[in-house]
Amino acid sequence: MIKVAIAGPRGRMGQEAVHTIMEKDNMELVAVLDHRELASNLKDYDQFTYDVPVYLDLQQLISTTKPDVLIDLTTPEAVYAHTKVALENGVRPVIGTTGFTDEQLQELTELAAKEKIGAIIAPNFAVGAVLMMKFSAMAAKYMPDVEIIELHHDQKLDAPSGTAVKTAQLIQENRPSHAQGHLDEKETIAGARGADFDGMRIHSVRLQGLVAHQEVLFGGEGQMLTIRHDSYNRTSFMSGVKLCVEKVIQLDHLVYGLENIL
Amino acid sequence: MIKVAIAGPRGRMGQEAVHTIMEKDNMELVAVLDHRELASNLKDYDQFTYDVPVYLDLQQLISTTKPDVLIDLTTPEAVYAHTKVALENGVRPVIGTTGFTDEQLQELTELAAKEKIGAIIAPNFAVGAVLMMKFSAMAAKYMPDVEIIELHHDQKLDAPSGTAVKTAQLIQENRPSHAQGHLDEKETIAGARGADFDGMRIHSVRLQGLVAHQEVLFGGEGQMLTIRHDSYNRTSFMSGVKLCVEKVIQLDHLVYGLENIL
Amino acid sequence: MIKVAIAGPRGRMGQEAVHTIMEKDNMELVAVLDHRELASNLKDYDQFTYDVPVYLDLQQLISTTKPDVLIDLTTPEAVYAHTKVALENGVRPVIGTTGFTDEQLQELTELAAKEKIGAIIAPNFAVGAVLMMKFSAMAAKYMPDVEIIELHHDQKLDAPSGTAVKTAQLIQENRPSHAQGHLDEKETIAGARGADFDGMRIHSVRLQGLVAHQEVLFGGEGQMLTIRHDSYNRTSFMSGVKLCVEKVIQLDHLVYGLENIL
Amino acid sequence: MIKVAIAGPRGRMGQEAVHTIMEKDNMELVAVLDHRELASNLKDYDQFTYDVPVYLDLQQLISTTKPDVLIDLTTPEAVYAHTKVALENGVRPVIGTTGFTDEQLQELTELAAKEKIGAIIAPNFAVGAVLMMKFSAMAAKYMPDVEIIELHHDQKLDAPSGTAVKTAQLIQENRPSHAQGHLDEKETIAGARGADFDGMRIHSVRLQGLVAHQEVLFGGEGQMLTIRHDSYNRTSFMSGVKLCVEKVIQLDHLVYGLENIL
Repeated sequence: MIKVAIAGPRGRMGQEAVHTIMEKDNMELVAVLDHRELASNLKDYDQFTYDVPVYLDLQQLISTTKPDVLIDLTTPEAVYAHTKVALENGVRPVIGTTGFTDEQLQELTELAAKEKIGAIIAPNFAVGAVLMMKFSAMAAKYMPDVEIIELHHDQKLDAPSGTAVKTAQLIQENRPSHAQGHLDEKETIAGARGADFDGMRIHSVRLQGLVAHQEVLFGGEGQMLTIRHDSYNRTSFMSGVKLCVEKVIQLDHLVYGLENIL
Repeated sequence: MIKVAIAGPRGRMGQEAVHTIMEKDNMELVAVLDHRELASNLKDYDQFTYDVPVYLDLQQLISTTKPDVLIDLTTPEAVYAHTKVALENGVRPVIGTTGFTDEQLQELTELAAKEKIGAIIAPNFAVGAVLMMKFSAMAAKYMPDVEIIELHHDQKLDAPSGTAVKTAQLIQENRPSHAQGHLDEKETIAGARGADFDGMRIHSVRLQGLVAHQEVLFGGEGQMLTIRHDSYNRTSFMSGVKLCVEKVIQLDHLVYGLENIL
Repeated sequence: MIKVAIAGPRGRMGQEAVHTIMEKDNMELVAVLDHRELASNLKDYDQFTYDVPVYLDLQQLISTTKPDVLIDLTTPEAVYAHTKVALENGVRPVIGTTGFTDEQLQELTELAAKEKIGAIIAPNFAVGAVLMMKFSAMAAKYMPDVEIIELHHDQKLDAPSGTAVKTAQLIQENRPSHAQGHLDEKETIAGARGADFDGMRIHSVRLQGLVAHQEVLFGGEGQMLTIRHDSYNRTSFMSGVKLCVEKVIQLDHLVYGLENIL
Repeated sequence: MIKVAIAGPRGRMGQEAVHTIMEKDNMELVAVLDHRELASNLKDYDQFTYDVPVYLDLQQLISTTKPDVLIDLTTPEAVYAHTKVALENGVRPVIGTTGFTDEQLQELTELAAKEKIGAIIAPNFAVGAVLMMKFSAMAAKYMPDVEIIELHHDQKLDAPSGTAVKTAQLIQENRPSHAQGHLDEKETIAGARGADFDGMRIHSVRLQGLVAHQEVLFGGEGQMLTIRHDSYNRTSFMSGVKLCVEKVIQLDHLVYGLENIL
């Protein structure tokens, strides 16, 4: 039985995580960390009926409930301090927020190494999305002509998506930089050929009704390889959270990116 | 039995057309029109073994072999004169080259009407591609948020493709003009959101190995409708050619676009 | 302003419909019909905060609140009686439940005709799904080789899905019955070639995480046409409900199937 | 410069291979092996204009032209003997025919090991298809609910395809055997749920116009991962042939399956 604490239980991801851990037979939710005093027990929150104590101070949470793992789904501002406190107190952090600086990452990596304690920082918890990225990086070695199409709902602000850019970066490491398409290619309407990322093209579709989808297309002589991920709802992240809780127990150092434990 | 003549038998489309008509039980290839004197019979060409007379002059071809239909797959320069001669001599033209001016189209339409004779001008003979365009125009009435992704081999020069632009034009007639995506949408890499055609976005993928593919995506509340056409090789045009030969016999006026006889 | 009543406001579809009508500027929710006395106003229900009166008797609802349209999302048992009462009292029904007998359909059709009042019965309210079916039926005239792949979550009991069978039936009306595949085709594992529906093949995929998806594939010489619908959540039905409310006002007879008003 | 000989130059794959090697800057086609005496040089064949000597005896070919690599695209009957002769004479075989018995494979593996010479036997040379299989096997560890859809032209005899069965076998090694779908699932038309391979389902689509396509679908909580390969024509095999010629030079033992050198 793995004893788990969750920081940020009222956010969208946090709520899912609370339900997810409560449903797992081999995990126990021993405490949650909130930043506002709403109630001292989750069962007094509108969203939950579970009997789990709420803490405002992480140090106190740890010394009282002694979790094995801290799942942190709070804001970039809070998460760095939480991670440090967890590591210093022998609690393995599983972190779902990006936004660490390189210096912070370096410091946390060294801290985990010194304490010989596992830690996982995962910008993306969706196992399928991470597999898509990993396979894309592998495929680019043999089929180096690549385009990415990402499709999201029409309320998304940025294009391309973070996942598309991350995918392109991983591919870039395995692919000699080169332009694609005909040398004399011409856009008769600007933007038709998409965003140019080191020669790869990224296309961002935004339509009402969509959720979060991406396909990576590899062209070759007489053939095409396509790797696609469809995320239909937020629960897609929970399989990755569960996997990380189980893996972090076995680690003795910090791992960045779900792809490195798959 | 429909008597058919083909102009331009040595081009890539022309060669396919010759084979296609020879294989049809209800059609007979009575003559071909070439613009260079290679041989007086197809069986003396490298590409063919069929016993079919070759003519250099359309007038002579018609008076000697009396075809019902002329399939013209020559260049824009030659095709206008051929079409006129055919119509004036009671031969129904099936034309696969674009590039008529509005004035020429107007004149040919009037000539066909005067002679009460059928004629079909089809910029695209692939039945599936034309159905895709027709359905897209229909769907846009009920699902007006649209993006087009077209995918071609990487030797294609223009982006977007002619078919993508034509599709967008047909949709435009059924769709109130409006911007799509979030009002504050931001491209972090230029071109990510594709080509803007009256608010619709068009994305052009170019990859080695691909042939000619297009999908039209319609977003709606909680749903997406996708209409896709894959063209795997040149024979995709031949079903449309055969259909036109059979339809043009029944017409007494000029029809522009395969979609108008489907 | 169209005055709307909803029968069955607590079901999954009913709840969505209540929210949908409340949000429309040109529609007013004047009453709901429930079959159990929970409260006399929606605002006293857990699910809602809207001030809308609740009735247990349809006759009383109609005489008091005088709706133009009744949206009925109740059970097959209740819906027939509701529809009759509505038609007899000058209220246009929009019905989302299947399960009428042929006799009941016949009777309701005649009643609507006699009263010269509009009525719509729609087994499927998802506009995109209905367009997929309509286009599939049209395409089959020109590309008669068809296979259907439908994909659903793994808790679905029946295979193929009702939508797949309905699609095949609509295609059947436009397609000469014929076997597909090689004459000497052999299944080395039984079931590989899917369900045989008048020569067309239907394949049912069931996987955790999926929602409701279908694609209809048309093969032709050197080409393929694909029409796909993805339903991501229940709101996909609401665009059809709204469309029906607006259309039923203009009708003077009963229409069966959303495809007949698109 | 790698010196290459090709056995079976007149078959469909063989012809492509001849053109492919002739076009490579770092390879030289030094001889071909035919089983009928047509001419002593390829330039006297109808299909080719290249000046390359033709041999009927492999031993003689090797001793005269001293190739580094033998690409064998002949029949299962001939290929075993060729492979043995090649290995015994220090020529590295690249073999594209399946159909070895386990004993033959064992013997050839031992022979290559004894001679410390590279050899590659690849049932499938399409790099994209092999990547699809490899990634599918990897993904099944984390997303064990899988269905396979393979799509081919309607002249194919067997269903499921060899590639689909091979994919399922590779997945099977990484996936605990289990039934998929609802326990009380019911086929209302037999075959709807496809072929059952150890709980995985395989669906075979056969349509005019298609070439060779396969997609592997992995379902998970709120998400789907899809890996798809499209083969548009025979040249898709040539990238794998070239890769093998380059790799086999560096090997000192026999490798079975392109996936093991990717």
